[in-house]
Amino acid sequence: MRRLTGSTSFHLVSMCLLAIGLSGGFSLQANSMEKPGVNTIFSERELQTAAWIRDAARQDNLSYKILESLTTEVGPRMAGTPGDARAVAWAESKFKELGFDKVWKEPVTFPSWKRGVEKAEIVSPFPQPLAITALGNSIATPDNGLVADLIEFASLKDLVAAPPEKIKGKIVFINHKMQNSNEYGLVVPGRSSGASEAARKGAVAIIIRSVGTDSHRFPHTGVMRYEAGVPPIPAAAMSNVDADMVARMIKRGKPVSLKLELSSSANGSYTSYNVIGEITGSELPNEYVLIGGHLDSWDLGTGAIDDGAGCAIAMSAAEFIQRNRIKPKRTIRVVLFANEEQGLFGGKAYLEAHRQQISRIQAAAEADLGQGPVTKMSSFVRAEALPLVKQMQMVLAPLGIEAGDNNAFPGPDMGDLRLAGAASFGLALKADDYFDLHHTPDDTFDKIEPARINQAAATYAVFAWMAAQAPLHFGSGPELEKLNKK
Amino acid sequence: MRRLTGSTSFHLVSMCLLAIGLSGGFSLQANSMEKPGVNTIFSERELQTAAWIRDAARQDNLSYKILESLTTEVGPRMAGTPGDARAVAWAESKFKELGFDKVWKEPVTFPSWKRGVEKAEIVSPFPQPLAITALGNSIATPDNGLVADLIEFASLKDLVAAPPEKIKGKIVFINHKMQNSNEYGLVVPGRSSGASEAARKGAVAIIIRSVGTDSHRFPHTGVMRYEAGVPPIPAAAMSNVDADMVARMIKRGKPVSLKLELSSSANGSYTSYNVIGEITGSELPNEYVLIGGHLDSWDLGTGAIDDGAGCAIAMSAAEFIQRNRIKPKRTIRVVLFANEEQGLFGGKAYLEAHRQQISRIQAAAEADLGQGPVTKMSSFVRAEALPLVKQMQMVLAPLGIEAGDNNAFPGPDMGDLRLAGAASFGLALKADDYFDLHHTPDDTFDKIEPARINQAAATYAVFAWMAAQAPLHFGSGPELEKLNKK
Repeated sequence: MRRLTGSTSFHLVSMCLLAIGLSGGFSLQANSMEKPGVNTIFSERELQTAAWIRDAARQDNLSYKILESLTTEVGPRMAGTPGDARAVAWAESKFKELGFDKVWKEPVTFPSWKRGVEKAEIVSPFPQPLAITALGNSIATPDNGLVADLIEFASLKDLVAAPPEKIKGKIVFINHKMQNSNEYGLVVPGRSSGASEAARKGAVAIIIRSVGTDSHRFPHTGVMRYEAGVPPIPAAAMSNVDADMVARMIKRGKPVSLKLELSSSANGSYTSYNVIGEITGSELPNEYVLIGGHLDSWDLGTGAIDDGAGCAIAMSAAEFIQRNRIKPKRTIRVVLFANEEQGLFGGKAYLEAHRQQISRIQAAAEADLGQGPVTKMSSFVRAEALPLVKQMQMVLAPLGIEAGDNNAFPGPDMGDLRLAGAASFGLALKADDYFDLHHTPDDTFDKIEPARINQAAATYAVFAWMAAQAPLHFGSGPELEKLNKK
Repeated sequence: MRRLTGSTSFHLVSMCLLAIGLSGGFSLQANSMEKPGVNTIFSERELQTAAWIRDAARQDNLSYKILESLTTEVGPRMAGTPGDARAVAWAESKFKELGFDKVWKEPVTFPSWKRGVEKAEIVSPFPQPLAITALGNSIATPDNGLVADLIEFASLKDLVAAPPEKIKGKIVFINHKMQNSNEYGLVVPGRSSGASEAARKGAVAIIIRSVGTDSHRFPHTGVMRYEAGVPPIPAAAMSNVDADMVARMIKRGKPVSLKLELSSSANGSYTSYNVIGEITGSELPNEYVLIGGHLDSWDLGTGAIDDGAGCAIAMSAAEFIQRNRIKPKRTIRVVLFANEEQGLFGGKAYLEAHRQQISRIQAAAEADLGQGPVTKMSSFVRAEALPLVKQMQMVLAPLGIEAGDNNAFPGPDMGDLRLAGAASFGLALKADDYFDLHHTPDDTFDKIEPARINQAAATYAVFAWMAAQAPLHFGSGPELEKLNKK
């Protein structure tokens, strides 16, 4: 408790909690589970501290302010652009300003891609322009664009099943409507693999219905891949509104001809950085809880929900602990990953740089599904740590957070860490409206609601503090690596 | 009733109404108000027919289908563009296809304006692109754009009050937020007059917060005017989202510098057309009820709510009467006006062409505030016709339509007709969400709800039929012209 002496705000509240018995309302069963000489569960005092963090951090507005700063002062920060470099500088400076104990960056090198002109119009029978955007990695069309008839498919699956003679020389239009936020995984393969599937059958280009749940005239960008050995063709997305309109044209039965003009291109190699800030642990500084988000965004919006929110949630969670002088035993490390959008480059680089120290990761959890709130916490830890996880879930329950299973996905940039044996947590963010804004110009700060992001920041603060303070190692290492392979 | 014999659908329903006494539930007081030899109110049979139109037309989906056709087959149709010419051809063809008795067009000549490149970005201290659009009539910037510091004003009024030395050499930013749909008249002067007010004080350009109620990253275009004798400067609008962001930058206290690039320009003279279709009256074919909307739209969206909806409502209302063989005594004339957006050119041309026959207009009402529903009906008629208006209001009451006063505004293209003495009606459309979409790329067909537009079409059908069938002339002519001037 030495650490706490200087923290008036925490100290007072903590005393109040003790005095009036507001220790969270859940059964602690502390003594019954302790083994002689080893704490295997959190002490009552630790649970009180965690409950205080939960309630006080929720009243804190720092995550909102950090996100306001990032979106206003940096804005779009697509990997490999000047915005990327500005974001890295902002992150280093912000970590320092927030009083993190250590701040550094680690290089991440990747092939860069640049957007250019992007235009499409229906040429006949009903000439009108469409709202489109190039998919990330798309090659350009010829200089003055290309014109061909559209052929519509309801899904990638239908394209794969179609005879090549119907497709040759045409522009493939995949009109797969994403009905709700659970369908991202179902619909997104059309974006990532559609071009090569279409090209294999002789298509000259592909234009997909945006992978998104809104009805506004915003196309959704996102990354695509060319399959080796298949000729690359230009790839774009039109807004859901335009997809509805083009489908109405096609229904009239005459050939519908589209002109597509893209000047996007590969742009050499670029080195960006994972930017890292640490709150050093008091007893086991070499072990750390890893939280974070990805610093890059797409270029159309200002990356408020994807993933400025995740960066702000993780930074503010750690800063809250630092500011209130309640350092836990282990270190809390916040990583803002480089270039998630174009292929998880930051996450892969982090794994390569730290592969030999997987067992030093006490727990890993990334925020990358918007502004919150968190609705569920799941884990991926050794069996001995499950009682601790249960206690963490009980502390978080008053925030409306359900207990999940022990098969957590820690987030896109940390998925490979789990495969390498890192103990992982999944703090599920409510994503009902996430895919309305995702990868569009409309991903902007005005969409952020303080109550939502503050709940998520409080949840991460509780999670990070408890995991870092836990009396047991959560099991990162060969044991969990093996469990992945079962 | 001879006219009705062939209309099975109407006839059957009409008989049913008589049989089960469903005549609308309002007190008719027919006999008490009749004068010997002259009907001064609608007969019970006429009221039954009107009630049948109300209920049957509401089940009809033609307005929705017409609008689907216009937005899909024509799309954007800004005055003076190829889309304008396609819209005129579409309208002539659609009137004929719908079985109107007479279809013709009347020329409307106006100065044409073309949009070009439109880009803006914050240059310093926080470089990022903005979502902007040129205002209609704006001149271009120099070829590579212009760069200057922004100076923010909360409203046009504040700009007018500001000392010139603060403005000279700067880009004026009017950040007047439209809080709800009632504030259009309050906020729009900044768009129309802001450029000349700014230029008078030495500003090099103006960029306004969009006049609109949404929080999406769409700029709202709209027309502006240069005052004679004041140097023209480029004029643009940024989205509400961008205005919030730029205001956050300015709040940080350092100069905020913006680069603006527009290549819009005047484009000579263009002749478009008011396209007109008539259902000829059975007894007084030279008198007519005038309904309509404007055929032109802005170019960013497909003009679904502004004003494809108005065109579709008026066309379907008249067609419903024709299809059901319930022609009223007077003619119903549907006018789809040319170039409302850039200065009411179609309305002015109509007045000039028909100024000598104002007294032939039984009643005038334009639909130009979206898809409905209609919430109120007001009138501008001579006193003797007020009992008829009251009956019309009673027939419409079950649609949720309130009775208004006798000082109706008949719509933008018909406003001058009222000033010239035309009896007028105001069928107020519910506009809560209208200014979310107005003049943006998001003004598209998917926003249309059949129940809303069908209610509006039914209202116009009832209004047009009753006004055309009315036993009294509503008073168009010198008497009402004088009333305007009181």
